[in-house]
Formats: sequence, structure tokens, C-alpha cells
Amino acid sequence: MDTVSIAKAHGGQQGVYKHAATSTACPMTVSVFVPPQAAHGPVPVLWFLSGLTCTQANVTDKGEYRAAAARHGVIVVAPDTSPRGTDVPDEPDNWQFGCGAGFYLNATQPPYATNYRMYSYVTEELPALIAANFPADMDRQGIFGHSMGGHGALTIALRNPERYKSCSAFAPIVQPSTSFWSRPALEKYLGPDEAAWRTYDATLLLADGHRFRELLVDQGDADPYLDNGLKPWLLNDACTAAGVPLTLQMREGYDHSFAFISTFMAEHIAWHAARL
Amino acid sequence: MDTVSIAKAHGGQQGVYKHAATSTACPMTVSVFVPPQAAHGPVPVLWFLSGLTCTQANVTDKGEYRAAAARHGVIVVAPDTSPRGTDVPDEPDNWQFGCGAGFYLNATQPPYATNYRMYSYVTEELPALIAANFPADMDRQGIFGHSMGGHGALTIALRNPERYKSCSAFAPIVQPSTSFWSRPALEKYLGPDEAAWRTYDATLLLADGHRFRELLVDQGDADPYLDNGLKPWLLNDACTAAGVPLTLQMREGYDHSFAFISTFMAEHIAWHAARL
Repeated sequence: MDTVSIAKAHGGQQGVYKHAATSTACPMTVSVFVPPQAAHGPVPVLWFLSGLTCTQANVTDKGEYRAAAARHGVIVVAPDTSPRGTDVPDEPDNWQFGCGAGFYLNATQPPYATNYRMYSYVTEELPALIAANFPADMDRQGIFGHSMGGHGALTIALRNPERYKSCSAFAPIVQPSTSFWSRPALEKYLGPDEAAWRTYDATLLLADGHRFRELLVDQGDADPYLDNGLKPWLLNDACTAAGVPLTLQMREGYDHSFAFISTFMAEHIAWHAARL
Repeated sequence: MDTVSIAKAHGGQQGVYKHAATSTACPMTVSVFVPPQAAHGPVPVLWFLSGLTCTQANVTDKGEYRAAAARHGVIVVAPDTSPRGTDVPDEPDNWQFGCGAGFYLNATQPPYATNYRMYSYVTEELPALIAANFPADMDRQGIFGHSMGGHGALTIALRNPERYKSCSAFAPIVQPSTSFWSRPALEKYLGPDEAAWRTYDATLLLADGHRFRELLVDQGDADPYLDNGLKPWLLNDACTAAGVPLTLQMREGYDHSFAFISTFMAEHIAWHAARL
């Protein structure tokens, strides 16, 4: 991993690194905050998956997670949201597909299947790299994210409940197979057979028998995407049917931005830390 | 004031506004955070002045000030660092002069004297606008800033000790009349007669009899500009000679970036709040 930048922050180290990724067949950039407690031994790892249009930089700049991560002694890893580069197929004018919109899945359709393998990148390649390069206790991992990244966190946790001990989300896309801004992407990445989409849809994973010990979701009630793209009540219905405890907190007056995320970031980190 | 953006954050409202400024003869953008306590009556105002190359956006995105401002009930105003626009004279390739480098002074030299009047903008025009548009108690104002903005905070407080009840700085330029990155700017803005520079130099204001009740400065000891541009010991000497109490805290391992600022932001806001 090449160091792009590193700086002391809140007693720990905020780094940004670049590495040649095998799973996505391109260079990937990742942000890693190491808390001061890591000087004394391995600490838990909390994965933050970002939303559409973001890179690792958005949450690193605006997420306000370092104070809480330093207080609770957790590493926070923030990957990019997609493969990138001149060799990566993209639709530059479409913010809901291609670069910045990897949807944390492994594409099966050409020409996307070579690079758009964010599921493997986030669940296999990057964890191995973190384990090899940082004082990380990989037996204590949690995962959370925002919007498309909330979808990523939920689906990855539901598919890997033994790996992740905690999962939460800010304003997640809970049913990407029906949401207006993800349906076209799933079709292009995974093909028209919707059966192949089910492992990348939190509500359908629950319907298909996947389970997680408990979930925490915060959602602003002034979020402009609440009714047409996010629909957290669909997750509530799916969790109720599956018997999975969900704490769904509607937050009065909050929108979809980092103003919302940063406000509740410390609460989420404390919640994860108590479970890691 | 036109609203550029507004979002609920940490229980308050983070807004960004644009207005036609008289003092700088151009549109200016300003960031204003209003804490939840303002719903019950006027609250103190804390001014944050940013450093070279910044706009109001840098600290708004990366400063991590909203949690503490909401806790202590203070408005935080973050102005831009210079006039901007196609009609504003600039040296686009010089990050130490012109746009992004207003140095919080009133230029006297053509062609800069028309627009580069950040001292008047920050001390007169913008306070009037804040008083008229926000639930601000203008009898309780504090001021702080970073680097060039630390210089701004120190010089503005020393020249207006009755107006500002508290002043602190992160890694300030304490002696801009000698610092390599500000001397050329002072000469172009104020002319070659260094006597005219004295009211824009914290150490020389102190030598000339200006006083402030107490000052707080944090400085990272891994700051690459420590020895050649910042030299906080010069402020320490000037404060000692003037009998002005200075708390100068050297912070081990911290650099000049927002990683440093954000780490100590909550401490500075608490310090100001106790004095406002």
C-alpha cells in the first residue's frame, strides 16, 4: 500500500492509501483511521461504506468519526465506492451507475464484470490487506454505511453474520431491486434475471432466510429520497417477518447529507464499540 | 443574504449564504452555524477565520465544530478568506497572495484597494449582517482562526478588545511582517513603507501598546511551517513583554492541517464559551 497522506488526528493516525487491487483490476484508494489504543495491541475494525458519488474522501473529510473512534478504540476503514480509472467502463453522465456507484456487488455482465467487483473487494481483498498492514483484531469487525453504502453494509452483514459482529446504517437503500436509483444499475451489472439480484437486496436476503443478530438504522425525516428511494419501512417489515431486531430511528428535520451522518456518527460508533 | 444551502446538523442549522458585499465590492460567501439554543433567544457569536487557500467551505466541511458549538450554544461564523470573482485582481498561480490570501487587512495599494478590504468586511459589514439576520447576541463575541486566519483573529482582537471577549488561534502567523509567506503580500497590499504594516502584525501591535485580556494558541510540533513561517515563540516573547497572558500549547505530532484543527476544535470552543 502506498501512503497518499497521513496525519495525527484525535490522538490517532488518519491515513489515506492507494494499492493495486486484484478484485477490481485497478488502483483503489482507501482511508484508514487508527486510534491511539492500537499502540498497545490489536483493536476492532469498523467498516464505513459510502454512498453514490462519494469516494473515500467524503466521509474522511465530513464524517466527524475520529473523535468517537479514538474514544472507543476502533479502526475505521472507508473504502472507495467503485473501481475507477481510464480502463474502467463508466457512464460519466450517470451518477447512479458506474464510477461512484459500485453498489458493493460483483457484476456478472460484460463489460462490467472485470472491474465492478466491490463485494469481493470489500469482503475479501481489503480485509486481508488491513489485517496485514494495521494493528487490527479481525475477530472483532463491524460494518456500517450511508445510503448505497447502507445497502452495502446491510447486505454484507446479512451474508456474513459470522464475520461481522455489528451492523448499522444511515439512510440505507433497503430494497435496491425496486428503488428507482438502483434497479437500472442492478440490471446492467447483474443482468435482467432478477433472481440474481436477491443476494444484493437486504429485504430479499431476509426473506430468503439470511439473519443478523440486530440492526440499527437512522433515517432523517426531511431526507428528499425517503419516500421514493429509501423506504426504511420495507426493512422494518422484512425484519419483523424474519424476527430480526431492528432499531429504526426517524430523526426529525435531518436530510440525506453529511450534516445528518456526522450528527449521529458518534452514537453509531459507540453502539458498534459496545458490540465489538 | 441568499441561502446557498441549509441543513440540520447536531440539533442546529448549518447554513451557507451569499451576499453582495460593499466593503469588498464583490459577492461574498459565508458559513453560519446556529445552535439549537438560539430557538430560545440570542446566543454568543464565535468567528472562525480560515487560512491561505481556504474558502468558508474548508472549516465547514472539516472543522468538526458543530457538536461543540451545539453543546455550548454558540453561533459559529466562517467567512471566506478574500474577495473573489472575475473583476477581482489576483495572481492565480500564487497561493500566498490575492484570492484565498486576503490576510484580513484593508489594502491601500492599487489595484487591490478596491476589493481587498477583508478587515472592514470581517469587523464591520459582516457583523452588521449577522446581527440583522441571526439570533446573535453581539455583546458576546469571540474570534479564532487558523494560520493566516490565526493572524487575523489575533490582530482583530488586539485592535478591538472591547468588541471581542475571547481570542484563540491554531498555528497562527504571529509576525506576518517578517514571515516569508506574508511579507510579499503585505508589500503589495499596503506598500513598501513597513510602518503601515504594524497594525496587521500581532507582535508589533503588542509592542505598540495594544492589549488583550488573554490569548490561547495551539501549535502542532510536526507542523512543516513551524520554524520558517509561524514561529509562535515570537508571540510568546511579545506577550511576555506586554504582560498579556498567553497559553501556548505545543501539540506533539500534529501538523498544519484540519486533522490538527479538528482535534482541538472542541477544546477551543469550550474555552471561548466559558468567556462569552
